[in-house]
Amino acid sequence: MSRVYNFSAGPATMPLPVLEEIQAELLDYKGSGMSVMEMSHRSKVYQQIIDEAEADLRKLMNIPDNYKVLFIQGGATLQFAMIPMNLCKNGVFDYIVTGAWSKKAANEAKKYGKVNVIATSEDKNYSYIPDVSDLPIDDDADYVYICENETIHGTTYQSLPNTKGKILVADQSSMFLSKPVNVSDYGIIYGGVQKNVGPAGLSIVIIREDLIREDVASTIPTYLRYDTHANNGSMYNTPNCWAIYVCGKVFKYLLNLGGLEKMDEINKEKAKVLYDFLDSSKMFKGTVEKQYRSLMNVPFVTESAEKDAAVVAATKAAGFDNLKGHKSVGGLRASIYNAMPIEGVKALVDFLKKYEEENA
Amino acid sequence: MSRVYNFSAGPATMPLPVLEEIQAELLDYKGSGMSVMEMSHRSKVYQQIIDEAEADLRKLMNIPDNYKVLFIQGGATLQFAMIPMNLCKNGVFDYIVTGAWSKKAANEAKKYGKVNVIATSEDKNYSYIPDVSDLPIDDDADYVYICENETIHGTTYQSLPNTKGKILVADQSSMFLSKPVNVSDYGIIYGGVQKNVGPAGLSIVIIREDLIREDVASTIPTYLRYDTHANNGSMYNTPNCWAIYVCGKVFKYLLNLGGLEKMDEINKEKAKVLYDFLDSSKMFKGTVEKQYRSLMNVPFVTESAEKDAAVVAATKAAGFDNLKGHKSVGGLRASIYNAMPIEGVKALVDFLKKYEEENA
Repeated sequence: MSRVYNFSAGPATMPLPVLEEIQAELLDYKGSGMSVMEMSHRSKVYQQIIDEAEADLRKLMNIPDNYKVLFIQGGATLQFAMIPMNLCKNGVFDYIVTGAWSKKAANEAKKYGKVNVIATSEDKNYSYIPDVSDLPIDDDADYVYICENETIHGTTYQSLPNTKGKILVADQSSMFLSKPVNVSDYGIIYGGVQKNVGPAGLSIVIIREDLIREDVASTIPTYLRYDTHANNGSMYNTPNCWAIYVCGKVFKYLLNLGGLEKMDEINKEKAKVLYDFLDSSKMFKGTVEKQYRSLMNVPFVTESAEKDAAVVAATKAAGFDNLKGHKSVGGLRASIYNAMPIEGVKALVDFLKKYEEENA
Repeated sequence: MSRVYNFSAGPATMPLPVLEEIQAELLDYKGSGMSVMEMSHRSKVYQQIIDEAEADLRKLMNIPDNYKVLFIQGGATLQFAMIPMNLCKNGVFDYIVTGAWSKKAANEAKKYGKVNVIATSEDKNYSYIPDVSDLPIDDDADYVYICENETIHGTTYQSLPNTKGKILVADQSSMFLSKPVNVSDYGIIYGGVQKNVGPAGLSIVIIREDLIREDVASTIPTYLRYDTHANNGSMYNTPNCWAIYVCGKVFKYLLNLGGLEKMDEINKEKAKVLYDFLDSSKMFKGTVEKQYRSLMNVPFVTESAEKDAAVVAATKAAGFDNLKGHKSVGGLRASIYNAMPIEGVKALVDFLKKYEEENA
């Protein structure tokens, strides 16, 4: 067994001790005589797995009792539709567009109502977060939507928008569980788990109970109604049992580590190693305005696309995987999620330093 | 490690050699230095996994070139909506209702058009398949829908309905890959994989290309359009990478076994062991008319609910798991999918024989 440092933006690296536990339990989960993949979702043994996962997540994020935790398939892409469909009252939706993912979400919402883009950083290729302290929130807005950490563009909010009393909905996919958040500030927090938690095919939706309505349009597909999932403990139909199990393991791992405060500390230290290098380098530079830099996704470039490509090839040959930047930003991108050890970031920085010296 | 005989209706037992391979590769897939759960779905190594899975499935089922294979999340429940939404032209849908699952599908379709139930076996608690040779197919029907094997009621079609030229859509979830089928007889075959193939959270949709339309209603959520998945190789967004990987392993296992002809032979032999016992027993009897008996799901009862419960408890204590029947049928149900070895069925029959002798 030889593991690489995997800087993929998602699906992404996972904690080795979690993978080892999963491996040990793969043929026979705790004396049940079967793999978790083989378990009836209606069995007692599986019910305990999903209940523990939810309880541990509630502890980790300090989720208030008036919020439901839902496990839903279909990724963020399905949430882009479910949010406007389920929150629609006036049919007016306010979006802050700070990158590829919030833009996609806004475009999907146009199918179901009027979308106002109340702020955007498109003018500078999404390299910053606009001032969100006093936005033209529509009086009729059913909610205000943000993508709190843009995976492709590598930006993150320093403070939440003033929604002037409207419901805040946040896509936290690429920062989920990376730091403490105050759940009560949001109407909905959701995230695809395949970046910062576990395997793809599962979104976790944390939703204030009063937003789960039964009087939504009757034409909404049953699977796309939040009440379908909320009224059935996320088991209206067979959920992604495996991903819930794996995420549960990661939740326990994070609790044992010291929770999200500790994780945040580690993430800040880790990101500092890379950003300090970028700020001192003559060859590489970060693409995001300093105060909006993501601690999770770090895009950076050289002076040309040719040099970028040469560096990517060199990192790959040296055992650092998935560092190629997204085509809309170019260059390189190091995703340094929770499970990336600081040793991985230090090794990458050492490599880049040496590369710069040798290719100056 | 001690494995039980798991008769769950789904998620369900999987082939042990497949689980062992997955376990061996869990920390480092074929020298990639990472788990399949950690792989970017855009990486070459993962692209090869999904390409091989599709190619092996095409070989197994002999899928013609004018059919697409799609890997979609959300289970059969999401297909219940996607089918009428995407096939809607006249807004008239013909359903044959032979049990809980076709009934659910018909109810969902009512959201999107006019549903005709053109045949049903509801009069006898779905214990048979109605005559489907000359049905009142609506001239405007956009398709005719069947659930080809009803998981709860334990029935299966002996011959496909005469659709009088209309498109046939079949939910094959609980019989998927259990026997050869002639794909060209169908417009769409789909199945949740969590019964006869792999872990929950993935449906496989085999769809004739001309049914993948771009001129569907613009209000259909992007994720629910077949063209979204077809135009992006099932990777418009991150798919359930893990389930696709596991299913790919099962496809290879079936090919090595001798394909679906061989699997069908084994399944017939296996089911005969159980049905022969039920037909000879004085204590137990099958609930389905003989010619419509499923080879996959075998419901049976004693003379009373009390005795049923006692038998279920006794089987569980003896290491046979998940034999309790669904509440709508009662009694017991043995799901004997592809991966249930004949030894498991023989052991169950031996146990039931002995139980009958001792409790006669």
